Order: sequence, then C-alpha cells, then structure tokens
Amino acid sequence: MASRFSFTVTATDGRARTGEVRMRRGAIRTPAFMPVGTAATVKAMRPEEVRAAGADIILGNTYHLMLRPGAERVARLGGLHGFMGWDRPILTDSGGYQVMSLSELTKVTEEGVSFKSHLDGTRHMISPERSIEVQRLLGSDIVMQFDQLVPTTAPLSDQQAAMERSIRWARRSREEFDRGGTHAAGAALFGIQQGALDEDLRRASADGLREIGFDGYAVGGLAVGERQDAMLACLDYAPEQLPADRPRYLMGVGKPDDIVEAVRRGIDMFDCVLPTRSGRTGQAFTADGPLNLRNARFGEDLEPIEPGCPCPACTTYSRAYVHHLVRSGEILGAMLMTQHNIWFYQRLMQDLRDAIGAGRVDPHAASFLDRYRARGATAA
Amino acid sequence: MASRFSFTVTATDGRARTGEVRMRRGAIRTPAFMPVGTAATVKAMRPEEVRAAGADIILGNTYHLMLRPGAERVARLGGLHGFMGWDRPILTDSGGYQVMSLSELTKVTEEGVSFKSHLDGTRHMISPERSIEVQRLLGSDIVMQFDQLVPTTAPLSDQQAAMERSIRWARRSREEFDRGGTHAAGAALFGIQQGALDEDLRRASADGLREIGFDGYAVGGLAVGERQDAMLACLDYAPEQLPADRPRYLMGVGKPDDIVEAVRRGIDMFDCVLPTRSGRTGQAFTADGPLNLRNARFGEDLEPIEPGCPCPACTTYSRAYVHHLVRSGEILGAMLMTQHNIWFYQRLMQDLRDAIGAGRVDPHAASFLDRYRARGATAA
Repeated sequence: MASRFSFTVTATDGRARTGEVRMRRGAIRTPAFMPVGTAATVKAMRPEEVRAAGADIILGNTYHLMLRPGAERVARLGGLHGFMGWDRPILTDSGGYQVMSLSELTKVTEEGVSFKSHLDGTRHMISPERSIEVQRLLGSDIVMQFDQLVPTTAPLSDQQAAMERSIRWARRSREEFDRGGTHAAGAALFGIQQGALDEDLRRASADGLREIGFDGYAVGGLAVGERQDAMLACLDYAPEQLPADRPRYLMGVGKPDDIVEAVRRGIDMFDCVLPTRSGRTGQAFTADGPLNLRNARFGEDLEPIEPGCPCPACTTYSRAYVHHLVRSGEILGAMLMTQHNIWFYQRLMQDLRDAIGAGRVDPHAASFLDRYRARGATAA
Repeated sequence: MASRFSFTVTATDGRARTGEVRMRRGAIRTPAFMPVGTAATVKAMRPEEVRAAGADIILGNTYHLMLRPGAERVARLGGLHGFMGWDRPILTDSGGYQVMSLSELTKVTEEGVSFKSHLDGTRHMISPERSIEVQRLLGSDIVMQFDQLVPTTAPLSDQQAAMERSIRWARRSREEFDRGGTHAAGAALFGIQQGALDEDLRRASADGLREIGFDGYAVGGLAVGERQDAMLACLDYAPEQLPADRPRYLMGVGKPDDIVEAVRRGIDMFDCVLPTRSGRTGQAFTADGPLNLRNARFGEDLEPIEPGCPCPACTTYSRAYVHHLVRSGEILGAMLMTQHNIWFYQRLMQDLRDAIGAGRVDPHAASFLDRYRARGATAA
C-alpha cells in the first residue's frame, strides 16, 4: 500500500485514545464524529457551515449516490468533492447496510446483492468489486469494504455465515481496491468487523480482516436496534480485537451517551444521522439532554436553544423563534436546528479529545452522562 | 405627523425615478424590491444572507403572524425585528389581501372582516383598528392601511363600493395609527389605492387617500390574475394619480419584466413571493429568462445557475449539483435556488437604479426585456 494515510495516537487514557488521522485532503482529529451527507449534502447545511462547526470529515452514502445522481455521472462531473463543494476528507460507506434496509426484492448470493431501487424500481447489483468501483468513481478518501449484514436477532449460524462471507468480500474489496490505478494515491480502505453480539465470531472476524490488512477497521452490525447495554457489552471486547495502531470506526453510532461510552472503550470514529435527522423534526441536543423545540413551553422562551452554545443559531435566535419556525414547518427551522446539533456533536468530540489528552476521560464521561441522562429523561 | 420618514428623488428619467427612503432603521434605495418574509422568515434564507443580497427592507404578513405565533406574543418577545434577527426596515401588509385569499367563511361588514383561520379553524376579526394594532405589536416600520379587495372580474359597482369602503377604512387606519403613542416614532403609514382597472375609480381613490394624507401610497388590487397588458395599461395612469413626492408601492408584483415595466411607469417599491417560491420549486431567474433546474438537460451542466452571477450559490455550485438537489428534494436545493433568485432580483433593482441615474432607463429596459423574453419563452 503506497498510502499517505497515517494514524497517530497522541494520548491514551484507559482504553480511550486521542490522535490524528492524516490524509491527502486534511487531518481528522480523533475521536471524530462524521456528519452524514447521504445524497451529496449534509441536509440543510452548507459545506462551509459544516466545516465551521468543526467537522474534519463527512460521510457519503454509496447506495444513494449510485442510484442518484449515479456514480459515473459524479465521476464525469469531477468527483463528489467538487460536486458538493467539500474539499476535506470524505468517507463513503459500501452500500452494504442501505441495500438491506432500503431496497426491495433483495437477493444475496456469493457474487453480491441484487436489488430494486427504492426510488424508481430499477434493478441494480452491488458486489464487492462494484462497491469499490463506485467509491472510486465518487472520489472517496476512506473507502469501506462491501460486507453482508443480517439482523442481530438472526440465528448464530446465520451470523457466522454472514461474517465469513464478509471476510471473503473483504478480500475481494481489498483486491479491487489494490488493482493498479483504480484509486487515487492516498485513498484508504477500511475493513468491517461483523459477528453480531458474539465474542468468538467478532474475534474470528477481526483475525480474518487483520490477515488481509486494512488502513482502518470498523465495528459493524451494531446500533441496529439492540439495547444500549448489549451494544456496550460488545464494545467491551470488540475494539480491542482490532489492531491498536489503526483507527477504529463504530458505524452508525449514535446518541451522545453512546458516543461517550464507545470512546471510553477505544473507538476513534463515528457517524450517525441523528443530529441532522432530529434537527429536522425539532429535537435539539444539549448537555442537559434532548429538547423537543415543538413543545408549547418554548413558545415564549427567550433563551437560545442551548444557553452558552457558541453556534450561530444559539448566538442569534431564541427558542421561541425556533419553536415558531419548527411549528410552522419553515426551512429555516431545519437549518438552525441542524446547525446547532452538528455544533453540539463536534463540541462533544472536542471535549472528549481534551479529556483524554488530560487523562481525565472517566470523570469527564461520568459528569457528562450524569447531567445528560438526569434531565434528559424529562426534558423532552 | 412627527415622523423621521423621508423620501428623496435623486433622479428622474421619463416617469421613472430613483431615490431613497430614510427611516429609523435604515435607508431604502428605490426602486426597491422587498423579499417576502411571510411567517417571520424569508423562506430558506438567513437574515444576513438576505441583507448580503442587497435587500434594504423585507415584508412581513400581518395575517400569518397574527395567527401564528400571534401579534401579542411577538410583542411580548420584543417585536418582529428581534424575533427574526432582522434589524433593518420591515413593511407589514394589512392582512386585507390574505384574509380574502386564504381564510374561510369570510364575512365582510363595514366594521371589518371576520374569518376562520386556515390553520386551525378558529374565528378571528380584522378591522382597520385591529390591523393597525397588530402591525404596531409587530413593530412594523411601514404600516399598510386595511383595505377591501374584490376580484378584478367583479362588476364595476362592486369595485366602486369596495374602493369607497377602502377610503373609509383608510381614514380609520390613519386615526388608529395617529392615536397617541400607539406607534413608535418614525413608523410610516401607507394608503392603498384601489379601483381595479378603471381609471375614474383609481382617480377617485387617489384623491380620497391624498385628502387623508399618507407617508406613501400603494397601488393595490393588481397582479391578481389579470393579463400583463391590462396591468400595464392601468399603470399608465394609476401611479401619476398619486402624489409625486411620496413613494409608490406596487403590491404583489412581480415577474422581472413586470417590475421593469412598472419602474418605467413611476413605481418605487415592489414585493412578490415569486423569487422565493419559485426557488423552492427549482425555477431560477436569469437575464436570459427563467430556467427550470429540474430539467434533465442540466444533469451534467457544469455552468453555475447563471453564468456571471456573483451570488454565493453561483460562485460555488454547478447547475448539475443544483439539479441533483432539486430532484432529490434536498433542503440545500431550496436554499441555493432562493439565494440566487433574491440576488437576481436585487441586481435587477440596482441595474434599474443605475440606469435611471444615468438617464438611460428606456434603452436599458428594452435591452433587458429583449433578452429576458427572447430566450425566456424557450428556456424553461
């Protein structure tokens, strides 16, 4: 791998670590939260606003982009970065998750997954090779292997079969990625650990991936409906099964308290639609737990969304105004709420990085979780 | 009237004039276009973006705001300016138009109009006194008299009756406005000329208003479905029936070519939902006429929405990207299209001001209209 991708851990605190990924398009401070830009846009935000919030990297969805506007089209237009006006790193998922959760008439074979588009019913195929090709066409900086997911409620034998197939697909993803010249210099490839909530399957998956070798490793198959305690029990062993000198990415997670708990267990990277999606429905994240700004009690509240928050929404507007916008279905409501939530998530990560650097991640986490959960349960 | 409101005409060219309104919250360069902020937001834009586009003043809708969030609530929260974060002048309409076009079970008497809210079916009443009170509670800078509208297709006798009632309501609006201390110093009151497409009714209306005396005068009852040539024929006489030393405001107009024609006929102020509403549906205004960015031919077009346009949307993004956003129903599509359209309208006004100042409004208008109409018919 002639890669300019590097990962440096600058401080550890228990299992938690803080550091920096360096790549061709910029550095990623870890632990990092990646705002989700599903369809080539972090919904309701301009790229410069996403950056101003502190994001070093965003995520794009292979499944969505291959269907619309199409990966070949994005490539003809110069790639995803220029298309959407974001010049820093972009991680693209492999489509493995969305193809199972969004598409119809899905058929899985050893070759890959064929499916009908949820947009127009056209038939498509994603294989490991096609997934890697699509991510290359998009111009992705961090490419994810194509993997197979089954529900955590499926029998252990199905979990094992899917995990083993994912290892075979990881190898094919690696081979396709390494084929000469298919990826621009400096792009990175991440493997994805599967194995549901079973420690032995997780270890077998990690060992299989490690043998192939990747720039980073994701913990996949979590945050798909299981209870938080089940997810955290898995995170008590899964991250440490992966190489310590590579970034560990917990896919699709999560709520602020999930993130704090996962960072304490050695996770370096996160993505989740929660701050953007919740913002569009009127839910604000705050240090005192989530607030539903639609609630009538905010109708004449002149405080900002979150007192003390330095984001442009909080320094300019009142809860009363945001309440009015959200109730009225105004686009500006989605804009302001999304902006606040992305700032909240980025500050959450900065605070965790600072706490790890200062060797006080446990008291910081305890203090954050006490406050977040105590009022959070009643605040909404 | 102890008013700090003033209007200075700095240049005339034929019937067209350019100048400046000065008020407590800032100057308004005329001819001026006022973006519409119906529900305390210019939809899909932040106030600082509206200002950056060149807008000196925006419009708020009394009907919408009295129903949600409520005028008394806005007053308790400190007024519309602070509520929405816009510190420059705001003109509020009187609710006369919306109450007829949006509400249900409308009943008009000499006292005023009673109606059922289109939001929740609750019963409300707007009279001249209540309209002026609501506009005071909102903190409006330019307050419009309450008037009665009837369709332009109604019999002449109905037009005359409505025009005469509007004069009586103008006097009651004036009296309510002048009641000691009801309006902050420097707020202005505009009368509204009615009379449909009849020159004699228009003159009678203008004479009645002039006798009462207002800071400015609106031409009302146009742009409600009549053909452009009928509207322009009315504008050949209606503005000149109004005092030359006061600003003339053509309510609810309009398309770029309507505005150019109306400026040539002596109109100083405009408002219209077209640039914002069209932006949300994918229609861009350009010097070559409107473009529908949903059209498949823009799918790989790397030009900006309008080549040469200095707006942030055009200097950053391609038609191909905006096409993708609009097709995908993304909020950012509405944001970028609205921003471009508001910039287009503000540049349209600046170009008209410059042309009048240089004594070349007729060749400028002819050149603009030739280009706008020639390709406009086929561009969408």
